[in-house]
Amino acid sequence: MRYRLIGDYVLTMDDHATIHHPGQVTWEDGVILSVGPGDSDHSPVDQEIYAPDHLVLPGLLNGHNHAAMSLLRGMADDSPLEEWLRQHIWPVEAKLTPDDIYLGTLLAAAEMIRSGTVGFADMYFEVDRVAEAVRDSGLRGWISRGLVGFDDPGEEKLAWSREFARRWRERGDGRIVPMLGPHAPYTCPPAYLEKVAEAARADGLAVHIHLSESPQEVRDMMRLYGKSPIQIAYDAGLFSVPTLIAHGVQITEADMPWLTRLTGGGVIACPVSNAKLGNGIMPYRLLQEHRIPVGLGTDGAASTNTLDMFQEMKAMAWMQKLQNQRPDAFTAYQALWAATRGTAAVLGHPGGQLTPGAPADLIAVRGRSDHMVPEWDPVANVVYAAVGADVDYTVVNGEILLADGIITRFDEMAVIKEARDRGAALKWLVEGESHGI
Amino acid sequence: MRYRLIGDYVLTMDDHATIHHPGQVTWEDGVILSVGPGDSDHSPVDQEIYAPDHLVLPGLLNGHNHAAMSLLRGMADDSPLEEWLRQHIWPVEAKLTPDDIYLGTLLAAAEMIRSGTVGFADMYFEVDRVAEAVRDSGLRGWISRGLVGFDDPGEEKLAWSREFARRWRERGDGRIVPMLGPHAPYTCPPAYLEKVAEAARADGLAVHIHLSESPQEVRDMMRLYGKSPIQIAYDAGLFSVPTLIAHGVQITEADMPWLTRLTGGGVIACPVSNAKLGNGIMPYRLLQEHRIPVGLGTDGAASTNTLDMFQEMKAMAWMQKLQNQRPDAFTAYQALWAATRGTAAVLGHPGGQLTPGAPADLIAVRGRSDHMVPEWDPVANVVYAAVGADVDYTVVNGEILLADGIITRFDEMAVIKEARDRGAALKWLVEGESHGI
Repeated sequence: MRYRLIGDYVLTMDDHATIHHPGQVTWEDGVILSVGPGDSDHSPVDQEIYAPDHLVLPGLLNGHNHAAMSLLRGMADDSPLEEWLRQHIWPVEAKLTPDDIYLGTLLAAAEMIRSGTVGFADMYFEVDRVAEAVRDSGLRGWISRGLVGFDDPGEEKLAWSREFARRWRERGDGRIVPMLGPHAPYTCPPAYLEKVAEAARADGLAVHIHLSESPQEVRDMMRLYGKSPIQIAYDAGLFSVPTLIAHGVQITEADMPWLTRLTGGGVIACPVSNAKLGNGIMPYRLLQEHRIPVGLGTDGAASTNTLDMFQEMKAMAWMQKLQNQRPDAFTAYQALWAATRGTAAVLGHPGGQLTPGAPADLIAVRGRSDHMVPEWDPVANVVYAAVGADVDYTVVNGEILLADGIITRFDEMAVIKEARDRGAALKWLVEGESHGI
Repeated sequence: MRYRLIGDYVLTMDDHATIHHPGQVTWEDGVILSVGPGDSDHSPVDQEIYAPDHLVLPGLLNGHNHAAMSLLRGMADDSPLEEWLRQHIWPVEAKLTPDDIYLGTLLAAAEMIRSGTVGFADMYFEVDRVAEAVRDSGLRGWISRGLVGFDDPGEEKLAWSREFARRWRERGDGRIVPMLGPHAPYTCPPAYLEKVAEAARADGLAVHIHLSESPQEVRDMMRLYGKSPIQIAYDAGLFSVPTLIAHGVQITEADMPWLTRLTGGGVIACPVSNAKLGNGIMPYRLLQEHRIPVGLGTDGAASTNTLDMFQEMKAMAWMQKLQNQRPDAFTAYQALWAATRGTAAVLGHPGGQLTPGAPADLIAVRGRSDHMVPEWDPVANVVYAAVGADVDYTVVNGEILLADGIITRFDEMAVIKEARDRGAALKWLVEGESHGI
């Protein structure tokens, strides 16, 4: 099947920052064939989508998620971190069944498709069910099982993760990329991280890890090992494979000797989560100066509440301007770059731009509503004014997953109903327990 | 006409934080008659709205806006402040006709109605046209002409403002409240502020002023007058009338002797604008400790880009948590309070809560979508997950302005088309000038 989408603007995010107005994108078999002005390609297509009110752009890439946690959305906001984890999140997570993981991931997928996200990097447990939800949703997924190297059988989990990777590399039709997911240096001692690094090198896998998220983590690691989380990761050999560093809020100049030796990967900022948990603002300018790729992610919906990457673009820009006390410290274009090319670079993925040969991952944003007019600057409107709800079309791997606001691959209403019911049941279970039932 | 709205939840925001689930609100002649559980009032009504999927809450109040600037949305984001004003905003503002002011304000009104805002405090010019747009939109407006006391005829403008207030107090059927709008201490010298304060006292008017917005402003005022902006306002007598202080980002402990003598009014935080322009985070905790009312506002769309108060609630919570480095420093409930009761307190308005006798200003937010389930906590979902686009009903003064997503009072599509066309024409004018045409 060959498709063409014609929109009012096409923001290509290519190396020349090309914008076509109006513009078209033509694709076949999951690959973009041509991009250009609205009348630049007259080759016959099987389906033409005419969206003259819309802005077309590369699909957004969410670089850090715990998708199934959407089932825990709003369950314990505004609590101190320790209480949040120990009294609220962990007790409920202990009750989640494999079916819950599938349901929560599919709920997250529905929200992502609806808000213009085409792929996400995930870390959680029961990841066969995560992979099944990704497969069924039509999205791309970079999937890892969260590995903890202390009291539970870390070796066994690592072996299982390698086996998972072999399984899903074959099954995933290219949309699923397994990764190794050592959770963080405070849950994985250095010797364990070394084993993960070895396995990653041996199997050609990339790594997904939380590093330098909070001031507390850095203090603890300095006290325990005399090293920053970044140096711990380097010393364990993780940077000899592509490593996705989630958060990186507390990275400093002193980390640069280690961080600049990253061989692939980069840092995923999660500005909403980092603010909401009181962790701080990531040092974008420092990373940019040292040419470390920076992408964007939401973190799980239990802390961020939504998976809307438009919200993350705004928050990233606001936080950077705030940190630098200058409105010109970070631009709308940099925010859009981070959510497309930036995350793609961290993931080692050729997407994030609309150019011939790139994956056919694109979205169309409604341009003619109260909050999107006038049209002084289409990039500013997309980043600072649009929200996920303005997305009408989401295309992944050439397949239309959101067609004029309708999710095509699965029954969205059934997922919403099931998530409501299951959330209510979990709430009863937890409240019952707290009453000694 | 008597109405009843039945929803899945009713968040009353009353003094007991009462939530009904399900709940109902009944009103007549613009005043709430009863609020309670879903089956608590069986009196006959003329129209019943059955919204079993929705969360019903008080309409949001936007405490600081320059509504007509929606026509300038996105025109020069990410520029340094001086360049933004002098090279971009002011040259275009000089070209705005009275009809543009009406159009821009109506565009803003459409966006506000659609995103659950029931009233706003505005400062701009050509305010007869602002007031006409408010009258025609059905919203509430606290309207002031921006007064500058230097080179232009400040006295004349003040006299005009007093005349404007007399005119619109009679015409506005209670939805329009004129105010006096001295722009800021850096544009209004102390002697002029004194005249404004005298006029406000004489005519029983409240004042709307920008104070302590940026570090630069505080430095300049200290250098010029040896006083902070807050002390300047106090010394000029402004705090002897209710004064709406917009921004207040740079307020410190040293301002408390003056600020605590406010007789009405309070501070309106604009967290998105304050971050986006790099001005900082307002000291909420300090103001709370001294019992200064704090409300929320968007500022104009030329700097904030949208007028979505759901976005401001999120940004307020994120910024406060960031500033205090604690996730429990500010709660979802405090954010919702600021956007309802808080702004109402600053405006001296009885709204912002759903109680018998209060104005019938309420909204209904769609609760059963991907990003709003499960339902662990309805307040967290409304504040951290909902966006303006989730609002399906907006009721002001008892009149349904948004009915199942349709704006009832004016032709929204015509406003959007006209705003697009006029924005494009202004863009051509400005670009032509920059090319010497």
